[in-house]
Amino acid sequence: MESSRRTFLKRVLACAATYRVFTTTAGAQSAQSDPLPSWNDGPAKQAIVKFVKTTTDQSSSSFVSQEERIATFDQDGTLWVEHPIYTQVVYCLDRVQVVVKEKAELAKVEPFKTVLSGDREAIAKLTMDDLLKIVAATITGMSVEDYTTEVKKWLDTAKDSRWKRPYTELTYLPMIELLKYLRANGYKTYIVTGGGQDFVRVYAEEVYGIPPEQVIGTSVGISYGYDKNGRPFLTREPKLLLNDDHAGKPEGIHLMIGRRPYAACGNSTGDRQMLEYTKAGEGQRLAMLVLHDDAKREYAYGPALGLPDTKIGTFTQALYDEAKKDGWFVISMKNDWNRIFAFEE
Amino acid sequence: MESSRRTFLKRVLACAATYRVFTTTAGAQSAQSDPLPSWNDGPAKQAIVKFVKTTTDQSSSSFVSQEERIATFDQDGTLWVEHPIYTQVVYCLDRVQVVVKEKAELAKVEPFKTVLSGDREAIAKLTMDDLLKIVAATITGMSVEDYTTEVKKWLDTAKDSRWKRPYTELTYLPMIELLKYLRANGYKTYIVTGGGQDFVRVYAEEVYGIPPEQVIGTSVGISYGYDKNGRPFLTREPKLLLNDDHAGKPEGIHLMIGRRPYAACGNSTGDRQMLEYTKAGEGQRLAMLVLHDDAKREYAYGPALGLPDTKIGTFTQALYDEAKKDGWFVISMKNDWNRIFAFEE
Repeated sequence: MESSRRTFLKRVLACAATYRVFTTTAGAQSAQSDPLPSWNDGPAKQAIVKFVKTTTDQSSSSFVSQEERIATFDQDGTLWVEHPIYTQVVYCLDRVQVVVKEKAELAKVEPFKTVLSGDREAIAKLTMDDLLKIVAATITGMSVEDYTTEVKKWLDTAKDSRWKRPYTELTYLPMIELLKYLRANGYKTYIVTGGGQDFVRVYAEEVYGIPPEQVIGTSVGISYGYDKNGRPFLTREPKLLLNDDHAGKPEGIHLMIGRRPYAACGNSTGDRQMLEYTKAGEGQRLAMLVLHDDAKREYAYGPALGLPDTKIGTFTQALYDEAKKDGWFVISMKNDWNRIFAFEE
Repeated sequence: MESSRRTFLKRVLACAATYRVFTTTAGAQSAQSDPLPSWNDGPAKQAIVKFVKTTTDQSSSSFVSQEERIATFDQDGTLWVEHPIYTQVVYCLDRVQVVVKEKAELAKVEPFKTVLSGDREAIAKLTMDDLLKIVAATITGMSVEDYTTEVKKWLDTAKDSRWKRPYTELTYLPMIELLKYLRANGYKTYIVTGGGQDFVRVYAEEVYGIPPEQVIGTSVGISYGYDKNGRPFLTREPKLLLNDDHAGKPEGIHLMIGRRPYAACGNSTGDRQMLEYTKAGEGQRLAMLVLHDDAKREYAYGPALGLPDTKIGTFTQALYDEAKKDGWFVISMKNDWNRIFAFEE
């Protein structure tokens, strides 16, 4: 009787411990379960666990109070797949089809003509000016609610060309575990993306557990106005307000958070300044870069691996050297992750 | 024995209940204590309590999930005193004295000459262009850390002319209670100010319990660079990035939060669009305006009271009419608040 009662209590306590790790924003890691099961035991995992233990241990000289625990993550190539083309670019190109239905005259002029031709080589050669015209036509000039509705609709049906799955399934399981692990230890997790802020906000809460107010991204101007019934609404303007890439990342972090992160993770030169800024803070700081070196399970790309620069998630040798010099951790997808996607067996 | 044990348990439970109301972000109002003791029982208090009960009661058709519970507050004139002059303007004028010590040539040119003269009438007549020159010289061209340090230092010593107290003591106790009450019921409280975002962030956490990432305000451009040792830092640029007043308030709310507030409170025409935007959302929404009608305990001002427009916290008759028409609550400082400041006996 006494023994079965003890077993029952043990079970309850074990459940409670697991529950804390995965659902609460306070409390330390449970001894019973590994919060990072998709990570191989190696320098990256060890660095993460050490960082979390040190900064959350009140007796440590590197203890960080809970309100200061900020962790920022790039999205494309860091939390989900970015190759062979950024998801948001696919969205804009797909939207051209819809837009020309409403404005037929666009089908006859560039760059829309090229997009509609489906000629991949010609599309790949579009200039930055061309792309800006496409962006203006496809994701601005509408209310913020209409934009959200359109993105939702698209995400529900669109599938990537390799895995034939919704884009929101192409998130990296080890990173989802890392986000949860940080939150379970009182860290507030943010996305800091060069992509569009309002695009990522549509699914970030469901997919990453990150609410809209913790998504910082490239933003267009928003203007307040009234419809014909006098009801106020917000319109997306064809005007760049915040270019949240490269130096724009720490600038955006200051604007939207006002605190320097203690941990940051990226995967390309666009994340360099965010990692520098994070690492330059006092005390223990964790800077990480995901290296795409797994051609079999995902992709291998970037000059740091001696491969051509595809201009998508560029990881240069200079970035690699800076990482080594400044003590950032490089996460090898091939060696550090035993599983990449949740849908894998 | 049994009876004293019961008394002890009762005491523990009573303490726990109070603790929940004042410190946690979840849970409902304790039956034992009034969370709004500085509010007189009247339509404003009743509207607030009813709104909170309805939106947090899972069985109510107006129930709002916790992640959607956003409440936004103007600062000047809503959370603290704004008359006879905005605190941040006093700061800039005071800073002119410091700036001319470093750049003596400024003392000889306008508008700095006028500010240094101390001639109140002449200072009051400075144009918007003059003020922008003062702003550029006093709060930009420095690192974000240096700015924070300067503001802190100033707040520690500066005192207002009427009460001879630090500005941070001139906060309205009923509003502090309201912020706590909302947070105790799962609402995330934000400041949405026409004033400078980084200024308010310096003290918002300590004074209002609102962390920097929940302060939205007028923002200058921030630029990333390196010092001579290669250490990165952020500089405040003399460039307006976000004018967080009037239409800029809902625009800033969308940029920084990405959700429509369920409750909002302001006190002037600068808050009109924020209140309209809040009230135009679906379900129960609470829009409130503080009316400065207490000449004895604080100030009475504004055209809605038949008094001259001082251009500081303008409350027009049109705003009053819109409030009545759209079901916003007007909070009378004189009638709705039995105490205004914490320092009052």
